[in-house]
Amino acid sequence: MLSRACTLSAARAARAAGAVAAVSSARFSTAAPAAGGAVGFIGLGQMGHHMAKHLRSKTDAPFVVFDKSGDAVSRFCAEAGQAVDVAASPAELARQSSVIVTVLPESAHVQEVYSGSGGILEGIRAGALCIDSSTIDTSVSADVSRQVIAAGGRAVDAPISGGIMGAQAGTLTFMVGSEDDADFERARVHLAKMGKNVVRCGALGAGQAAKICNNLLLAISMVGTAEAMNLGVRLGLDPAVLASIVNTSSGRCWASDTANPVPDVIPTAPSSKGYSGGFKTRLMLKDLGLVATAARDSKTPLLLGALAENIYRHMSSSPELADQDFSVVYKWLAGRQDA
Amino acid sequence: MLSRACTLSAARAARAAGAVAAVSSARFSTAAPAAGGAVGFIGLGQMGHHMAKHLRSKTDAPFVVFDKSGDAVSRFCAEAGQAVDVAASPAELARQSSVIVTVLPESAHVQEVYSGSGGILEGIRAGALCIDSSTIDTSVSADVSRQVIAAGGRAVDAPISGGIMGAQAGTLTFMVGSEDDADFERARVHLAKMGKNVVRCGALGAGQAAKICNNLLLAISMVGTAEAMNLGVRLGLDPAVLASIVNTSSGRCWASDTANPVPDVIPTAPSSKGYSGGFKTRLMLKDLGLVATAARDSKTPLLLGALAENIYRHMSSSPELADQDFSVVYKWLAGRQDA
Amino acid sequence: MLSRACTLSAARAARAAGAVAAVSSARFSTAAPAAGGAVGFIGLGQMGHHMAKHLRSKTDAPFVVFDKSGDAVSRFCAEAGQAVDVAASPAELARQSSVIVTVLPESAHVQEVYSGSGGILEGIRAGALCIDSSTIDTSVSADVSRQVIAAGGRAVDAPISGGIMGAQAGTLTFMVGSEDDADFERARVHLAKMGKNVVRCGALGAGQAAKICNNLLLAISMVGTAEAMNLGVRLGLDPAVLASIVNTSSGRCWASDTANPVPDVIPTAPSSKGYSGGFKTRLMLKDLGLVATAARDSKTPLLLGALAENIYRHMSSSPELADQDFSVVYKWLAGRQDA
Amino acid sequence: MLSRACTLSAARAARAAGAVAAVSSARFSTAAPAAGGAVGFIGLGQMGHHMAKHLRSKTDAPFVVFDKSGDAVSRFCAEAGQAVDVAASPAELARQSSVIVTVLPESAHVQEVYSGSGGILEGIRAGALCIDSSTIDTSVSADVSRQVIAAGGRAVDAPISGGIMGAQAGTLTFMVGSEDDADFERARVHLAKMGKNVVRCGALGAGQAAKICNNLLLAISMVGTAEAMNLGVRLGLDPAVLASIVNTSSGRCWASDTANPVPDVIPTAPSSKGYSGGFKTRLMLKDLGLVATAARDSKTPLLLGALAENIYRHMSSSPELADQDFSVVYKWLAGRQDA
Repeated sequence: MLSRACTLSAARAARAAGAVAAVSSARFSTAAPAAGGAVGFIGLGQMGHHMAKHLRSKTDAPFVVFDKSGDAVSRFCAEAGQAVDVAASPAELARQSSVIVTVLPESAHVQEVYSGSGGILEGIRAGALCIDSSTIDTSVSADVSRQVIAAGGRAVDAPISGGIMGAQAGTLTFMVGSEDDADFERARVHLAKMGKNVVRCGALGAGQAAKICNNLLLAISMVGTAEAMNLGVRLGLDPAVLASIVNTSSGRCWASDTANPVPDVIPTAPSSKGYSGGFKTRLMLKDLGLVATAARDSKTPLLLGALAENIYRHMSSSPELADQDFSVVYKWLAGRQDA
Repeated sequence: MLSRACTLSAARAARAAGAVAAVSSARFSTAAPAAGGAVGFIGLGQMGHHMAKHLRSKTDAPFVVFDKSGDAVSRFCAEAGQAVDVAASPAELARQSSVIVTVLPESAHVQEVYSGSGGILEGIRAGALCIDSSTIDTSVSADVSRQVIAAGGRAVDAPISGGIMGAQAGTLTFMVGSEDDADFERARVHLAKMGKNVVRCGALGAGQAAKICNNLLLAISMVGTAEAMNLGVRLGLDPAVLASIVNTSSGRCWASDTANPVPDVIPTAPSSKGYSGGFKTRLMLKDLGLVATAARDSKTPLLLGALAENIYRHMSSSPELADQDFSVVYKWLAGRQDA
Repeated sequence: MLSRACTLSAARAARAAGAVAAVSSARFSTAAPAAGGAVGFIGLGQMGHHMAKHLRSKTDAPFVVFDKSGDAVSRFCAEAGQAVDVAASPAELARQSSVIVTVLPESAHVQEVYSGSGGILEGIRAGALCIDSSTIDTSVSADVSRQVIAAGGRAVDAPISGGIMGAQAGTLTFMVGSEDDADFERARVHLAKMGKNVVRCGALGAGQAAKICNNLLLAISMVGTAEAMNLGVRLGLDPAVLASIVNTSSGRCWASDTANPVPDVIPTAPSSKGYSGGFKTRLMLKDLGLVATAARDSKTPLLLGALAENIYRHMSSSPELADQDFSVVYKWLAGRQDA
Repeated sequence: MLSRACTLSAARAARAAGAVAAVSSARFSTAAPAAGGAVGFIGLGQMGHHMAKHLRSKTDAPFVVFDKSGDAVSRFCAEAGQAVDVAASPAELARQSSVIVTVLPESAHVQEVYSGSGGILEGIRAGALCIDSSTIDTSVSADVSRQVIAAGGRAVDAPISGGIMGAQAGTLTFMVGSEDDADFERARVHLAKMGKNVVRCGALGAGQAAKICNNLLLAISMVGTAEAMNLGVRLGLDPAVLASIVNTSSGRCWASDTANPVPDVIPTAPSSKGYSGGFKTRLMLKDLGLVATAARDSKTPLLLGALAENIYRHMSSSPELADQDFSVVYKWLAGRQDA
């Protein structure tokens, strides 16, 4: 079975027993290339699941999804509450879609979904827009975009800031790189359904670049906040008082005023919930790996950045720390004091 | 001449030709201990000059100053526009004052002004409050406070955040450590005349501790911002666009949104004025030295902090960089790229 | 012309006008597969030129070379002083050779020479032994070795320690990874003609791994020696006296006793010859990039190593420092002191 | 009782009931100033105990000791096997001695023993030579030496390399700073009885400077060796094979070839004995604190050195690691991998 209907409308029930191509052509046969196609979504993981739900609920066009995990697909279809087509491959999805959003964990997955056997490039429609919201190697992102354009499609990179909670709440920020304003405007319409900020960062690849620069600074700020808070505590300061001072002074930063790594300083911060529910240490390590590769390729020295990466690598060797919010670097630093 | 009147009122003109002791005793003989004395100010350097002018202009009690530089004293008296007494030594100033503010560059100066020959401790009145607004070693600060209290005075540490521009505008923040609320309240009245925030950080020494913790995080944030901006520029991003993204995202920090180290991103930042007018590299290095000493004494590991200190030490070996705003670390990092 | 004879013997003069294949088959027709073939050498750069000369002079079998630079080939042929065949491509060279030595600058060159169009894999003889003496990514080295074996050949990795001077003098050390003892023994016979130590490091890839681990420690030792010597000089010590003490004490290391970074401490060190004639900063940076990639892939934290890499990256942004011996880190550290 | 005899010779038995002054004057009355006095030894701790035993056994002159721990004194006297006088204070010891050796743990102890109440300076004989073999702050060492000279004595700094095993075996190295050759020669005679190398490092203070520079490089080499060995192991190398390669290549260093941090690579290394019997992590941390202070005072940037110090500080927060040989940094790095 090439495709199965999640929500069994009469039309889809028929299709469930037939060839997708036929059903699809019935549906799409009068559509202008790209303009009249479906909206496709690939990658129904922790982020993608919530994003696709927002996008589905605000999209009138047919909506088609793909994920290599059948469970992820079933779960999405069950929760979507609206008609969803399920493609048997990225290629099949591409054949139906004028816009495709991809949200995948790593560079290798993006390469496979786009350029692999049964990948998007095999089925892409003329003028279809591919929006890749994965955070991946800048060089892989550039390669994939070039291939999409060479195959007659359009491409933007649009990595995400805001985490799972932002995905759920629909408050994500998208950092977009595009060849021109038209591509950006086309992407913006769809991205705005999943988040609250859609920012153009520059040419193709600029979204990836902005994302990793932000996360580099975030990692350094977090380790720095952990060091400063730990020093304050050991000098006898109340951490909440120290944070309140820093947060109205020149040490102020998101890592201190929103995600302070000391438990019970900021009640909504992951540190106050057992370092759960935030941005995992191993995901920060992954992003710092992207930073390091970009820095090496561009011959850019990173002194604090390289050290922060290796601190997160050291922490990631502990399975417990690896799956906690990255602010747990405070515990890594300070906990050993009392060991 | 032990003392000279800056503003020659009739009473002071007489005193100018006589012994200070006599004049002082005439003036203070009926005063209750400490309560009725003058307000004394020691240290009329770049910060102290402006601070003392604000304090003088809002103080009704007699105002007495000391600085070992005659030029600094003359300049202050000329600009104060109100009656100022000049003491011949910290001890003489202390004999007249119920409140003493000290603003000095380094630990050694504080030790000399308080405990040296002719120092405050030789003349301190019972119950007089010593407010030290210098940023110095936490251990020296604690020692000096103990000595003041042992000599019958009261002490608070109240280091400053806000720089020369804040001193001039009267918008400084004071971070105060005090034994009790009463001392804090007494200090607050005077500090509020020189700044806009007076924050109690905890027990004696807590002001120094909070100050250096803030500056540790500030230094790390600044070097981190420089690294992230430099990487972005080398990846082809427009620095103003990158900053605008970071500043509304999780990389947000004072070093990026207020003092961004890339010229022309934030027009009011020192980087946009040739790295002038801010917080000099060599002063940041001095504060990081205080951090390092406190870390060593409290056995607190600082990984990024230790590296930031040594980057600033490396930079400080260049006389040009040493006297520029500490955001010039961007130039140190990036400038060499193009060298 | 697919091939040209450098040294025009009668037989080769004939071949110069004919097909290599014919000539080769005439020459090799009675040889057992692989065993009776030529010795091939690819990569006549700064290292390869000298290595190939040593190997040529001690090899009785036919000797065939390839380099994409015609100048490099001409220069080698002119200096070899013995018959040399020149192949038109790595594939052609492979068709003639039972042993192939490759000495190439970077991973991409190795991939191209082996797997590219006209590459070794297109012409490899059954059982031919490929000895790759390039220093490249451990993952690329593993890939290439697997491909050689899949194509019916044998592979060892044998990166080099000893530099250009070692190549010239024939005193190199080869760090060899091989699937079994037989491959190692086969390689050893040839490598011993170009160096004085041939060490088996373990299974395939172990040569690359040992090489980069050594160079990681070398880089750290060198930066550490520079820091310690600089501190000593600034504390008033005579650098030669300090070095003599360290070199007989627990700080002893090759970077101090053989390549001391302070000029005139060790007369034969590059630092005493204007930081010339050694291992260039940009080549050390390249090796540290291989280290970083291997560390990332194996999730190994490197704290000093990451910092050393970024110090060399910072230095490499200066064209002057990039081309000097990597001990010039002393000048980078200390020279700024006096700036 | 100002003094008590450990070994009760007839003369000393008498003295045990009388005034030391009288006995001393009887003994020393005809001696030329300094030349004819006793040899004094202060500090019978883990190092000093063994050193004093060697010195006692090779000294014909009277031998007098002081330690504030009665147990340390008793133990020494019990094991010395020869007549030993015990002074009641450093001052009393100084009154009897023409040469005084001090071996104390930290700067504060040296200050107290020399300048405190009942200290050496109160009793020092004209021309007496003070040999301080403690490893302390360069600035404290310089101060104390100046005070000794001002009081009419002579001073050399002679810190030790070689550890407890070297102290026991009499194979220590002494790094000596002295004002002139004569002082060095005088010190050498005595130091040679306790060690095998006595090296003149330069002027007063040069011994301390050389010692900390060596230990800075040692710490960096050890952390670097741990990183390189850990990387090699994770890349699949046999650590003994890797060490054998590194030790004959450019990564060679004492930390690898003598004290390799991986267990069972070097059988005599502390790592092969459960990280026991070497130089404790907390003592290395202490020395790195001296390095950091000297670097700060001399405005010398230390990048790897600052990081190494903070790694040892992080490790020292674990009581278990703090008391193991400093090569346990390997376990800190690698052990977490498997956690």
